[in-house]
Amino acid sequence: MRILGIDPGLQLCGYAVIETGAEVELIEAGVFRTDSNKTMGKRLLQIATDMQSLLERFAPKVVAVEDLYSHYAHPKTAILMGHARGVILATACRFGIEVKSFAATKIKKSITGNGRATKQQMQRTIQTLLGLAELPEPADVADAISAAMCCGNAEKFITDN
Amino acid sequence: MRILGIDPGLQLCGYAVIETGAEVELIEAGVFRTDSNKTMGKRLLQIATDMQSLLERFAPKVVAVEDLYSHYAHPKTAILMGHARGVILATACRFGIEVKSFAATKIKKSITGNGRATKQQMQRTIQTLLGLAELPEPADVADAISAAMCCGNAEKFITDN
Repeated sequence: MRILGIDPGLQLCGYAVIETGAEVELIEAGVFRTDSNKTMGKRLLQIATDMQSLLERFAPKVVAVEDLYSHYAHPKTAILMGHARGVILATACRFGIEVKSFAATKIKKSITGNGRATKQQMQRTIQTLLGLAELPEPADVADAISAAMCCGNAEKFITDN
Repeated sequence: MRILGIDPGLQLCGYAVIETGAEVELIEAGVFRTDSNKTMGKRLLQIATDMQSLLERFAPKVVAVEDLYSHYAHPKTAILMGHARGVILATACRFGIEVKSFAATKIKKSITGNGRATKQQMQRTIQTLLGLAELPEPADVADAISAAMCCGNAEKFITDN
């Protein structure tokens, strides 16, 4: 199954496309950015356009994102992230693609077996599982891969039952 | 000048269309709601559709919203508001309509002369200024009217200079 993981942000969104099966294959991962000199509306429209382009290029069956939590270290950044996340979810829905969201602890546990794994532990485990030559960087890419892989694992459990 | 004021929220958005000139005329005000039983994506897409419909019906020159502040009493609600606000700003931008945002204190001062006016003072002043038979309710409608009127006043100052 083709899954698109997204780590939303106003300045930078991480994305990862995986194909699940006997093994998980990473098709493509990266980031898309917005120009902070532009208006908020233009930046959000850019995110919608980039998201649309990913959906058209990769035709995922599911979009996977991290759930919202109750407490953020930087509330204003979290609200701006919310702007980007809103546009991403609406765009997925416009294309009729299901969105699944997973708690951060569930994602960490699904990848490393530990719901409190550090960012570096996550990156190393992803590198090993996917056989990558380098650590997935920046962290936003690793987070997008993690969300997609967690979703893949969840689907596997559902299918295997 | 035709101005559309919006008070964004995931559950409920207030809107107000005003026409500025020698006097301010309230063309229409109300709320649009989303169904909390639906997925987040569907609710956000509903907001985009309702916003699009307002832009098509009223063809405003500007969309006016309240600025983000640094501290919210309910951070998670603020992040969900951010989802709705993001979709609204992106939709306005998609239609090529300029968005102006105003600090809450600036809006209050612009309407009542007092940057710390209470909600009720705001509602009463709007009622008087627009000659409304009743207080504008719910608060989301009053907030949308306030944002639009503040924008109208700001434009007037720019034009008069």
